[in-house]
Amino acid sequence: MKWEEKVRQVEPYVPGEQPKLSDMIKLNTNESPYPPSPKVQEELALLEAADFRLYPDPQSTDLVAALAGRYHVGEEQVFVGVGSDDVISQVFLTFFSHGEPILFPQLTYSFYEVWADLYRISYVKVPLMEDRHIDPEDYCKPEEKGGIIFPNPNAPTGLLESIETVEQIVKANPDCVVVVDEAYIDFGGKSAIPLIEKYENLLIVQTFSKSRAMAGMRIGFAIGSKKLIDHLQAVKYSINSYTMSRAAIRLGVAAVRDDEYFRETISKIIATRERVKKELADLGFTFPDSQTNFILARHKNRSGKELYEVLRSQKIFVRRWDDPLIKDDLRITIGTDAQMDKMLDVLRMYIG
Amino acid sequence: MKWEEKVRQVEPYVPGEQPKLSDMIKLNTNESPYPPSPKVQEELALLEAADFRLYPDPQSTDLVAALAGRYHVGEEQVFVGVGSDDVISQVFLTFFSHGEPILFPQLTYSFYEVWADLYRISYVKVPLMEDRHIDPEDYCKPEEKGGIIFPNPNAPTGLLESIETVEQIVKANPDCVVVVDEAYIDFGGKSAIPLIEKYENLLIVQTFSKSRAMAGMRIGFAIGSKKLIDHLQAVKYSINSYTMSRAAIRLGVAAVRDDEYFRETISKIIATRERVKKELADLGFTFPDSQTNFILARHKNRSGKELYEVLRSQKIFVRRWDDPLIKDDLRITIGTDAQMDKMLDVLRMYIG
Repeated sequence: MKWEEKVRQVEPYVPGEQPKLSDMIKLNTNESPYPPSPKVQEELALLEAADFRLYPDPQSTDLVAALAGRYHVGEEQVFVGVGSDDVISQVFLTFFSHGEPILFPQLTYSFYEVWADLYRISYVKVPLMEDRHIDPEDYCKPEEKGGIIFPNPNAPTGLLESIETVEQIVKANPDCVVVVDEAYIDFGGKSAIPLIEKYENLLIVQTFSKSRAMAGMRIGFAIGSKKLIDHLQAVKYSINSYTMSRAAIRLGVAAVRDDEYFRETISKIIATRERVKKELADLGFTFPDSQTNFILARHKNRSGKELYEVLRSQKIFVRRWDDPLIKDDLRITIGTDAQMDKMLDVLRMYIG
Repeated sequence: MKWEEKVRQVEPYVPGEQPKLSDMIKLNTNESPYPPSPKVQEELALLEAADFRLYPDPQSTDLVAALAGRYHVGEEQVFVGVGSDDVISQVFLTFFSHGEPILFPQLTYSFYEVWADLYRISYVKVPLMEDRHIDPEDYCKPEEKGGIIFPNPNAPTGLLESIETVEQIVKANPDCVVVVDEAYIDFGGKSAIPLIEKYENLLIVQTFSKSRAMAGMRIGFAIGSKKLIDHLQAVKYSINSYTMSRAAIRLGVAAVRDDEYFRETISKIIATRERVKKELADLGFTFPDSQTNFILARHKNRSGKELYEVLRSQKIFVRRWDDPLIKDDLRITIGTDAQMDKMLDVLRMYIG
């Protein structure tokens, strides 16, 4: 047998473009338009390269402690990783690879399917309702499941489900791990973290890449029962003892501690989002009522592809997929007010 | 079935201790006793937290280009990851999980067994020869293999195999991927990187954690044929699009570019190692002739456990295992001359 026949076949995830034009408006990967907390810059100035000769703390104790304090949970209930993608990848390997199919929404973060395929996990993609919300009943049927994962708010719809809906799903599924991917929860939702006290099989995943404006430093985390976290740690220590760099730990702690700045920037992003919703509606767009830092907008008589190209020609980058379910939608990240005005101007000019 | 019965069972790797005593002498995880290149500190001072709001380049182009230039290979022949552990973990998943058993030395980096178990890969542990060298014949038998991995120099023996031995193994195994883990190659060995031009199934893995004094920033890399690297990239993009932080990419580039400092610190470490070998021999120790930044030393009439505790009582940390093959050995990282003198003094005093 040739060596190439022994290689694992995969269908990789395709991340949004990372163009390097200096004068572009980048609204395609849901980054924050604002810098991280000034405390992060202060901490950065205190870092010393000489310290980097030593391995980091494999347990990332300081970062774990900061998160535990911020979210009022125990340190043994927190797991950190190299972005929430790293965390969720380990979640799939740890909790979902037993044999039974896992469930996730048909229209959702497309990486779930990639991880499932990578680890040879079978899955069922559950269609959304007409209004693009999740129907909790679909996840509450008594069949044996390998696990459940869904984002709340969902992406790319931006739609938030209530805590009651989340609890209904968890409650009906004591026999598998239920993961709520709260990458966008800070932009208007209510986290399900308090539910972990009641459900030892509930895991919440969040990220520093969106609301904490730290996508470039790669920090994500999970919060759940000690049992869940212990299992995740065991797999983590079977992959890479030292995942978080000394810089990531120090800067992550600085970011978590500045809650005031965090709330301030989020308020600004939410205010911009609500204003942009009105203006998009005036231009003839429809969209789910996003509670995230993006809007999935479709125009009544212009194709998604067409609008995507028009914006791109003006160096405004938004995200678009060929998936028939959303081929006429643009996923537009909420930028600064000035960036959104520029984008709206281009759309207004073109749509006429 | 209960959710806990669906969890992946693993036997995690146990990393060396990372004690936080300010006045300790840390000779237990093979870090460099010298800081990274001054260019790393210069680059660190230029980093701006505001840049961290954006995702890093998913391809780590600048770091890949710097490594390609340094090792005279194409950019399409370089793969980077979060330390060489992250790289090797992906190697196991990509190349070794087809079904046939993989081969690695019986006494070697103990993480190989952990990755194999994690990904349910069968393996054969090949005993070393009496002199603790690898017998290439053991790896050249015509049976179907899932893959081969060995460190060169091997750890924890510190023994280097010649390029001819490496080539003999690769040449005899065109039907599986052969991985040479060169974590310690810079301390006296000759890299097998030039062989990748002849063998498309040969992958070389190296790290910034030892000779480049950057363990705290988590950077490792692999060099091989474009075909191998493409397969690794596909799996990487199925796990985490953005593994390398903006800080890691920038500081990594700065480290690679300062070849003069790199050679200087390595020379110092080698000089210290050779001197310490003599002094250890005078004290009644025997050891394989290490070509790494550590020495695996055994005393003629003192147990490993005893010496380990004596050093520890003086806040000198070395590494020791209970494995019967090496239970009387101490793995001593080469520190500064002053640190080694302190350690030798403690041993001398105790041994008498």
